[in-house]
Amino acid sequence: MNYVSTAVTPAISPFDQLGLTDVTAKLEDSILIVTLNRSRKLNSFSEKMSVDLVRVFQFGDQDDRVRVIVLSADPSAPAFCAGVDMEEVARGSSLLGRKEDSETEHRDPGGQVAMAIYNNRKITIVAVNGHASGAGLTALQLPFDFRFIWSGSKITMPFVRLGIAPESTSTYLLSRLIGEARATAVLFSGAVMQPDSPVISNLYYQVLPNRTDVLPAALVLARNISTNSSQTSISYSKGLLHHPGASIEAHHLLDSRAMKILGSGNDAAEGAKAFMQRRKPNFPDTLTKSLSPWYPWWKTTDVRHPKSSKL
Amino acid sequence: MNYVSTAVTPAISPFDQLGLTDVTAKLEDSILIVTLNRSRKLNSFSEKMSVDLVRVFQFGDQDDRVRVIVLSADPSAPAFCAGVDMEEVARGSSLLGRKEDSETEHRDPGGQVAMAIYNNRKITIVAVNGHASGAGLTALQLPFDFRFIWSGSKITMPFVRLGIAPESTSTYLLSRLIGEARATAVLFSGAVMQPDSPVISNLYYQVLPNRTDVLPAALVLARNISTNSSQTSISYSKGLLHHPGASIEAHHLLDSRAMKILGSGNDAAEGAKAFMQRRKPNFPDTLTKSLSPWYPWWKTTDVRHPKSSKL
Amino acid sequence: MNYVSTAVTPAISPFDQLGLTDVTAKLEDSILIVTLNRSRKLNSFSEKMSVDLVRVFQFGDQDDRVRVIVLSADPSAPAFCAGVDMEEVARGSSLLGRKEDSETEHRDPGGQVAMAIYNNRKITIVAVNGHASGAGLTALQLPFDFRFIWSGSKITMPFVRLGIAPESTSTYLLSRLIGEARATAVLFSGAVMQPDSPVISNLYYQVLPNRTDVLPAALVLARNISTNSSQTSISYSKGLLHHPGASIEAHHLLDSRAMKILGSGNDAAEGAKAFMQRRKPNFPDTLTKSLSPWYPWWKTTDVRHPKSSKL
Repeated sequence: MNYVSTAVTPAISPFDQLGLTDVTAKLEDSILIVTLNRSRKLNSFSEKMSVDLVRVFQFGDQDDRVRVIVLSADPSAPAFCAGVDMEEVARGSSLLGRKEDSETEHRDPGGQVAMAIYNNRKITIVAVNGHASGAGLTALQLPFDFRFIWSGSKITMPFVRLGIAPESTSTYLLSRLIGEARATAVLFSGAVMQPDSPVISNLYYQVLPNRTDVLPAALVLARNISTNSSQTSISYSKGLLHHPGASIEAHHLLDSRAMKILGSGNDAAEGAKAFMQRRKPNFPDTLTKSLSPWYPWWKTTDVRHPKSSKL
Repeated sequence: MNYVSTAVTPAISPFDQLGLTDVTAKLEDSILIVTLNRSRKLNSFSEKMSVDLVRVFQFGDQDDRVRVIVLSADPSAPAFCAGVDMEEVARGSSLLGRKEDSETEHRDPGGQVAMAIYNNRKITIVAVNGHASGAGLTALQLPFDFRFIWSGSKITMPFVRLGIAPESTSTYLLSRLIGEARATAVLFSGAVMQPDSPVISNLYYQVLPNRTDVLPAALVLARNISTNSSQTSISYSKGLLHHPGASIEAHHLLDSRAMKILGSGNDAAEGAKAFMQRRKPNFPDTLTKSLSPWYPWWKTTDVRHPKSSKL
Repeated sequence: MNYVSTAVTPAISPFDQLGLTDVTAKLEDSILIVTLNRSRKLNSFSEKMSVDLVRVFQFGDQDDRVRVIVLSADPSAPAFCAGVDMEEVARGSSLLGRKEDSETEHRDPGGQVAMAIYNNRKITIVAVNGHASGAGLTALQLPFDFRFIWSGSKITMPFVRLGIAPESTSTYLLSRLIGEARATAVLFSGAVMQPDSPVISNLYYQVLPNRTDVLPAALVLARNISTNSSQTSISYSKGLLHHPGASIEAHHLLDSRAMKILGSGNDAAEGAKAFMQRRKPNFPDTLTKSLSPWYPWWKTTDVRHPKSSKL
């Protein structure tokens, strides 16, 4: 059923306390592999799946053993993710907003997932080994650092055809990722595309001809990054990309400060040494112990609990 | 002369009161087809053309019957649009600024057109079936949701070669649409390009080999969108794309609220029903009756009348 | 050693007072050609090279004779630029931050170069005729208006593999230039790429099959722009691109004002006349004499001297 599963995970896993049901997780070396676990329901996006994904990506963010997080699905499932579970919506789940919530209280579950991934301080990779619609293309693809996909995947953003809003911060991310000319084409055509369509192809790092090749290809990159990259460098780099200065001058002050901090760290010393000795680095710094108090330098906002947020 | 013209439009058309001369307009089902009407002048951009375009796009924005607006030209015209009418400029029109206006009073007519299109709440499509220069590539292409073009079109932004400013908010739009690396190449080379040039190709949704195929291809998409899409969903989606939050968190609050509003609307109910029943939707909501008071959530500024604007 | 060199430059050059050592410069017609001058050190980025580049690009910005600035290297050098000089870093240069500087005092030398290029009011072109790593891909490529490159160039951003921060405002520029989907791929893979890689290809204006063809191709464009373009138009256009309004309405006020100013200038008159007469223009306006007091309209910040900057 779930092909990256139980045999490999030890009996008592660090994920037991997370109460995961709609995804599974395992840690292989420093790679956290997360797998959608609703194959029978076309891996459709449920409220519980959103809770599980937020928890497991937050685990990956905070656990120093994790250097890269990879999301995938069973390649034999009918879909990578068929969008929100319409049956759950019909039963009144929070996916499109609960009746008892006011306009300002609703928190889109797909957006909560998107933020847990986009704000993650570790490298995130998605291996899309099947068809993807709605949240399967927004929450489960856009916020990642790298997207691998099967060339046969049928992908679509059907929001204007369903009379609902494009969710999961997709209207924030899509323009930034591939430009507004492509974003409008993807969003407003509502068309079913394939990854080689010029409208969407820039989104993908690698397109694979076979469904079963997608996760292995993603894992090759994951291992390369996990072996060769500094966690502190990655966390500052993601911060600089996602929270740039308001001008090139303001940004220069940010990346100068990041360089001064990292440049005197243990990872930079090891990086230079390994480079000189032409060997693989063995970076000692961790996010728990080695982040400067300056990080994060941007204002963070708690948008988890409806009534605590005052934007 | 004007090939999408009088025979089809009823004797008393809703456009009679708009006083159109330099463009024509007709409403076919829910598609508003606008045609440049200065073939003998190479469809060059006149002050009156700018007034006509602003009026007709505002009509399309406000009339609930209109779901998609398509701009095109006579495919047998010498050009789709040869840029501003230089004879008019020589006669002292407002195109590059009237003598009697102060520096802060001038309002670029191309920019007024660009805003009427970019801020439109309906889907906008341009069918570029000829050569395009200056305003013909800025005001008349960049602000649209979709751009169709004839592969043989010669297109250029000649501003630095004319000693004038790139107008029609093109320096705002071009980077957002295709990225700054391409924007500088287009703007500063001043080169004559064709649509398949890698420098500009990302701008276009579809490139057609024959001039006469461009409008028909645009109309296929227009009908598809007009038949299958919700007006309220489109208006919120365009708002989210054009007015994103300042951070992913701020944006999450915006699209959550949009989802909560739309999710309880009639279009979402019809969209879900049609999806379940595998039939075409018949969306009942209109912008006149169904937009929440929250829309538009961004601050709007009146930049039409020079002396009323205090930016 | 330095192939665009002494034989052509007159004995007393305008650059003598700049004290250049790690780059050379010559003025040919209105094109300032700058050449990296550390071939024996793989043209690695030294503190003195950063000082030289800032000086020579500021010279180009301020001298009215200069219309285009082209940066290149000796095509027979082992690299276009192999990144920061690691020996200098080991000796305690300011490249990654001096020990005696506090966190907020460091000013990344690559960022100082990037700003001198990105903020330049003249057209800037880089001819990358060899391999490029680190600062050779950040400071020496991203801030330019046009990038020409040899198809065989091996290019890489190795920051996460060295445990340091991506520098030279690269995290500001890269997303703007080619979109965030490509920016993360370039930055976080740390991979060695070639210019035709889809991940990076959008960055380049032209890719040349031979190393020795790169500078000549860049010079063809440089001459075309220098002969046919207005300096005032270019300086306003770059300002509009780099400092857009916060909304399309705000931007409309900016480009309307720029058009009103330029439209009544001598360059616009000459541009219109040359266009009508189908001849090359001979633009009379210069930045020294002809810029309106409104320019620059954005707030500039001095980030050169650590203790004078209070962002």
